[in-house]
Amino acid sequence: MSQPPLSAPGRHYLAIPGPSVMPDAVLQSMHRAAPNIYAGEVVDMMPSLVADLKRVARTDQHVAIYIGNGHAAWEAALANVIATGDRVLVPATGRFGVGWGEMATAIGAEVELIDFGLEAPMDMARIADALRADKDHRIKAVLAVHVDTSSSILNDIPGLRAVLDDLGHPALLMADCIASLGCDRFEMDAWGVDVMVTGCQKGLMVPPGVGFVFFNDRAHAVRGAMPRVSRYWDWTPRAFPDLFFEYFGGTAPTHHLYGLRTALDMIHREGIEKVWARHAQLARAIWAACEAWSMEGSLALNVSDRAHRSTAVTALRLEPPQATQLRDWTEQKLGLTLGIGLGMAPPDDPAWHGFFRLGHMGHINGQMVMGMLGGIETGLRALDIEHGPGALDAAAAIIAG
Amino acid sequence: MSQPPLSAPGRHYLAIPGPSVMPDAVLQSMHRAAPNIYAGEVVDMMPSLVADLKRVARTDQHVAIYIGNGHAAWEAALANVIATGDRVLVPATGRFGVGWGEMATAIGAEVELIDFGLEAPMDMARIADALRADKDHRIKAVLAVHVDTSSSILNDIPGLRAVLDDLGHPALLMADCIASLGCDRFEMDAWGVDVMVTGCQKGLMVPPGVGFVFFNDRAHAVRGAMPRVSRYWDWTPRAFPDLFFEYFGGTAPTHHLYGLRTALDMIHREGIEKVWARHAQLARAIWAACEAWSMEGSLALNVSDRAHRSTAVTALRLEPPQATQLRDWTEQKLGLTLGIGLGMAPPDDPAWHGFFRLGHMGHINGQMVMGMLGGIETGLRALDIEHGPGALDAAAAIIAG
Amino acid sequence: MSQPPLSAPGRHYLAIPGPSVMPDAVLQSMHRAAPNIYAGEVVDMMPSLVADLKRVARTDQHVAIYIGNGHAAWEAALANVIATGDRVLVPATGRFGVGWGEMATAIGAEVELIDFGLEAPMDMARIADALRADKDHRIKAVLAVHVDTSSSILNDIPGLRAVLDDLGHPALLMADCIASLGCDRFEMDAWGVDVMVTGCQKGLMVPPGVGFVFFNDRAHAVRGAMPRVSRYWDWTPRAFPDLFFEYFGGTAPTHHLYGLRTALDMIHREGIEKVWARHAQLARAIWAACEAWSMEGSLALNVSDRAHRSTAVTALRLEPPQATQLRDWTEQKLGLTLGIGLGMAPPDDPAWHGFFRLGHMGHINGQMVMGMLGGIETGLRALDIEHGPGALDAAAAIIAG
Amino acid sequence: MSQPPLSAPGRHYLAIPGPSVMPDAVLQSMHRAAPNIYAGEVVDMMPSLVADLKRVARTDQHVAIYIGNGHAAWEAALANVIATGDRVLVPATGRFGVGWGEMATAIGAEVELIDFGLEAPMDMARIADALRADKDHRIKAVLAVHVDTSSSILNDIPGLRAVLDDLGHPALLMADCIASLGCDRFEMDAWGVDVMVTGCQKGLMVPPGVGFVFFNDRAHAVRGAMPRVSRYWDWTPRAFPDLFFEYFGGTAPTHHLYGLRTALDMIHREGIEKVWARHAQLARAIWAACEAWSMEGSLALNVSDRAHRSTAVTALRLEPPQATQLRDWTEQKLGLTLGIGLGMAPPDDPAWHGFFRLGHMGHINGQMVMGMLGGIETGLRALDIEHGPGALDAAAAIIAG
Repeated sequence: MSQPPLSAPGRHYLAIPGPSVMPDAVLQSMHRAAPNIYAGEVVDMMPSLVADLKRVARTDQHVAIYIGNGHAAWEAALANVIATGDRVLVPATGRFGVGWGEMATAIGAEVELIDFGLEAPMDMARIADALRADKDHRIKAVLAVHVDTSSSILNDIPGLRAVLDDLGHPALLMADCIASLGCDRFEMDAWGVDVMVTGCQKGLMVPPGVGFVFFNDRAHAVRGAMPRVSRYWDWTPRAFPDLFFEYFGGTAPTHHLYGLRTALDMIHREGIEKVWARHAQLARAIWAACEAWSMEGSLALNVSDRAHRSTAVTALRLEPPQATQLRDWTEQKLGLTLGIGLGMAPPDDPAWHGFFRLGHMGHINGQMVMGMLGGIETGLRALDIEHGPGALDAAAAIIAG
Repeated sequence: MSQPPLSAPGRHYLAIPGPSVMPDAVLQSMHRAAPNIYAGEVVDMMPSLVADLKRVARTDQHVAIYIGNGHAAWEAALANVIATGDRVLVPATGRFGVGWGEMATAIGAEVELIDFGLEAPMDMARIADALRADKDHRIKAVLAVHVDTSSSILNDIPGLRAVLDDLGHPALLMADCIASLGCDRFEMDAWGVDVMVTGCQKGLMVPPGVGFVFFNDRAHAVRGAMPRVSRYWDWTPRAFPDLFFEYFGGTAPTHHLYGLRTALDMIHREGIEKVWARHAQLARAIWAACEAWSMEGSLALNVSDRAHRSTAVTALRLEPPQATQLRDWTEQKLGLTLGIGLGMAPPDDPAWHGFFRLGHMGHINGQMVMGMLGGIETGLRALDIEHGPGALDAAAAIIAG
Repeated sequence: MSQPPLSAPGRHYLAIPGPSVMPDAVLQSMHRAAPNIYAGEVVDMMPSLVADLKRVARTDQHVAIYIGNGHAAWEAALANVIATGDRVLVPATGRFGVGWGEMATAIGAEVELIDFGLEAPMDMARIADALRADKDHRIKAVLAVHVDTSSSILNDIPGLRAVLDDLGHPALLMADCIASLGCDRFEMDAWGVDVMVTGCQKGLMVPPGVGFVFFNDRAHAVRGAMPRVSRYWDWTPRAFPDLFFEYFGGTAPTHHLYGLRTALDMIHREGIEKVWARHAQLARAIWAACEAWSMEGSLALNVSDRAHRSTAVTALRLEPPQATQLRDWTEQKLGLTLGIGLGMAPPDDPAWHGFFRLGHMGHINGQMVMGMLGGIETGLRALDIEHGPGALDAAAAIIAG
Repeated sequence: MSQPPLSAPGRHYLAIPGPSVMPDAVLQSMHRAAPNIYAGEVVDMMPSLVADLKRVARTDQHVAIYIGNGHAAWEAALANVIATGDRVLVPATGRFGVGWGEMATAIGAEVELIDFGLEAPMDMARIADALRADKDHRIKAVLAVHVDTSSSILNDIPGLRAVLDDLGHPALLMADCIASLGCDRFEMDAWGVDVMVTGCQKGLMVPPGVGFVFFNDRAHAVRGAMPRVSRYWDWTPRAFPDLFFEYFGGTAPTHHLYGLRTALDMIHREGIEKVWARHAQLARAIWAACEAWSMEGSLALNVSDRAHRSTAVTALRLEPPQATQLRDWTEQKLGLTLGIGLGMAPPDDPAWHGFFRLGHMGHINGQMVMGMLGGIETGLRALDIEHGPGALDAAAAIIAG
């Protein structure tokens, strides 16, 4: 007999910033016998799957699919364009920006890190200074995180493109859209992004296990000049396959392909513009509630300026250890799992217990958001955590739109 | 490819008074190959399944399982103790009380209906009058609905038992717990209920398809004196089987048995007293919100006295056609399906659009309830339906408990 | 963690005569959240579902759906046309023919049983004699089992119609197609069947839980003249509903409707004529193997004449207790579950262990049948049960056809 | 509505050499909401999961888990111990041996390939010669495929260890057990294997998506001396994690972990020795059938010596284009999908159509194997492909054991 694992009765709500809530239809489509991998349905579905992936990323360029998580996509992207000794610029606004830079260091790149801290977006002027200082154009790529899942900061990718263009700097613009794709507006071609990495388990609403590297002809030309790219990371056969197995550098992730097919159907049936608008509206509702709470007591949004907040994830602070207490209470009493703070403090530091995050990615709607916010309101009351009034009404007013 | 059917994005919430929200673990346990029905797991699980069903009903007496819905259980119960020409008393407090009586009429019983309307519980004095008037004890049974799903009225079953006992009337006390079992407190043996009928799709959290008739030795003696009971409805082999197929009068509902096994595991792991307490607390939260809304505008709870409200379902009124407008809005915009009003007005009467119901049965928790209430608040605002303030905060305060 | 229940490794094969092997697509379609039962998908699917059910039964007449098993459908059919004191003729060719007659007795009918034993089909001459003797046409219906699942005898329904027509006897021709529908050819209208009962768990490939009563205008006229039909069994609202719930006399079997929808899609995509041809070919392969085995030792087909064998189920004999030994061996060693003998001997009689049955209903193909036959061949060898050679080659030759 | 994709009715049987048939219990356990990845069930299950993985590989050493396919595991293993300019010896016995060597070349290794062709196992004398010639021990590793899925050749890994030991050569012994683990006997520690790579989609019976690198302390010392290992491939944090995410170098493959947990439960409940014995017995049955067929006509087993045949996969030849015709026939008529020949001829060469393979990995039993062989026998007959008699009886005799 199966054992429902968690203690709280009722339907659980995993409101962490990934993996996100998986649609029932996605899980249903993955519950099937293994298909043939040499002919038939999974082989036939690939052209439309690739096309529909590109539509989400708003690109007519290329995509390589990797069995792997977001970190795999990070390394795959680097492996195709960054060789030992190459220089990259990393303007970081959170744990993940720093992490991608560390990954570049580990493959032998020279990494120039500009750390903008945990609460502010990239400062384009400082980036421009760094690029301007790179007179001989040794910086081969700028690794920019669109939304840093740890800080929930949204960075201005078109603005970064403009900086590069204004300076005539040839560095590749590489964007991490792991947290943002399918949530925050992102337009690869229109924004001039050369390489974009993402995963399937957030806005794409599929269980973790597949990552993606999108790239344009300009990036592919850089890859063509690489001294060597390992066979598994090489995006060439994956993006331009002659045979089915080349899409995946070996055995296909059969069940994930079915899940992805269903998720993409859902996204495009709704329409990507509407998906973005939905995330934007729900994020405004969440912000309104959080801002109301923050009027009294210690609760605070990590990013003060709405223009720099992601619509997919919201990082928050509470007097430690209240954040951990709140997360524990909502999980145990309500089956509502909130995200831990990440990268704000070491796990063994008391400050760790002063951060938490809300995931609002992908398969969400107003009723779910009201449940999540209602759960937090309830927890704040139950734990006697001081907070401002009117949060739920403020959120409802926005969803009522 | 599977097609998610509904228009609203995000997880849907079916907040109608049955079928209720099915736990993932229940659905998962039903997704399996057909088992052998002559030996093995489904055969072996029956004794514990029966025992665990009885624990939910708080009885040491007997249970017959029927593949069927609640109406099947109604007819099955009647068929075992009511013959053509027998007399039954039906104190109705909603559509379903009336309906059970109609079913008795259709099998040839003489039905004495006391209709208490749609907003008030049974009046014990009037029932006592009717029983007292039945000097020669022709009334063979009283058909009492514990909770009428249409009106959400909770009736006082122990009080009804006391009336019968006080008058020394031998009529069987037959209770319909279709809406209430596993939600509202019910104690078959302690309350002196002779026959109880219920279904699997509400508090028992299993897809519709199985009904139950619980009965005690006293009722079984009445059945023994019946001139004839049809083979399919006869509860004797089902409750006292020699062979496995007799439990079901033929082929077993194999997949439902697995679902039921999982649901009963969940209920008893939580503990039936805790299940009742959870429903009571969440119902108080729902009432608090509804009472707040009702302070301004036309929204009103169907049952004014909290003591007579079910903790499983709540019937409400709004100026027509606002109830229908609200239901449509929450379903289309939020994926939140509220229940229609039932039995309050004919479907082709404009008044029909002035009723709706909330289901809060079985697999629910505070986060879900806050989502449901938050969705309603949002809909009221979006549709400019006048309502009192503070509903969500009032609910949160109670769940914070 | 889920526990795979059975001991034998590898995929299991339930080759009993019902429930049959459920297609993965059917199970997948049933794994979903409860739908709204007042509007939306399940409501909208009913007209096409009913139409597609009728196409399987080859009728333009009517169908009533019952949550229930085959026994429920039996009783439902009787309840609509047979009143206390009515007379029925029951020409039985196995346990189930006898059983339907017993059910008629239990509702007060006078039953005239002609028992043709367990190995031979109906003898039309004897039936004609009985009808001829019924000069005042008191026999209201003939209850004929198309395929008796216990004996695997296939009866000649058009022949029975001819007998009634030749004699000008007005009795209703009622057919039990529980084992045969969707396997053996059956044509309700062309064959002049007035009432037909079946279930969902055999040729219709859905987990047990739904039964069907098909009836024509002639039978409906008889129902119209009935003194009383109980509300649950009344086929009128179910076949001619004004509201959705009337299809089911209450709450709909939501998940079964999805399963049924998928199964009917599969049947009609293949084409019912092709479905019959497939069953016929595979049955010939099974017979060829069984006939080869029977050339030496005690194994024997229950029905000697191929013309009277069902293509859905095959009953066999072996020297007791070899049948039980064989079933145990194939189940424990190969995960292949064969059917028990039913109605041939009491379970506590040593003779019981001399019967077994093969189910070959619905979701089967040549590879599965070769696996089943190969499993039996293997078991016969392992247990040193004497048998003739060449069984598997004989079967392969027919499937190669 | 879901659409069963394939044309043949009945249950399908994917008898290709991976992905293998997935147990229903595995698929069921993967059909669940996304879990928290920071605490709870998936975090708690890791220690036992790792331990149970090691038990399958018969090692007390270390394992790193990678989201990825077998090719990912290949590259991961190489990336930890082979640097640019390092030398490896690749004794190939099929497409996959060659492929692993190509992957080593692509990361900059000097590869010494000994190609033993497609029909014979490694010749230890030739390998010894190569090692002996490597006087200054520049060969850092020997990349040995235990079972080459393309040729179905089983290589003598303990024998290879003995060669290394006898010569006192310090090269790492790296084994590819992608096709063999959980099927053919493999004992990492007892056999002195330093690094072993495998995937989840064959003997481990989980949908493709996770790969494994097992390594011992000796290999880990080599990794410690590497100039650089990329962050994603580095096995150190994966095998010796401080935090949960380090097991996977990022987000966990949540659903695969549940599937793997269930599959490992099944394997260890049966017992790994019994799993091997089952595969051995079933392989002997398959060989017996194939050898019978090969007595007449062109059908031939690729590996003539039974001692060098894998018990997980069998490669076969038929006069082209008969192999393709046979595969097409069994798939379209019987729902039985046989494997294509791989690496024996280019896909555009007519010779391509003269090869096919049978997968008999993991979740198999005697009934399934008899179905697969019965399907092939049927196809040979239907297509008038000349073949020897008695194949099915020969197989049945062995399974009868």
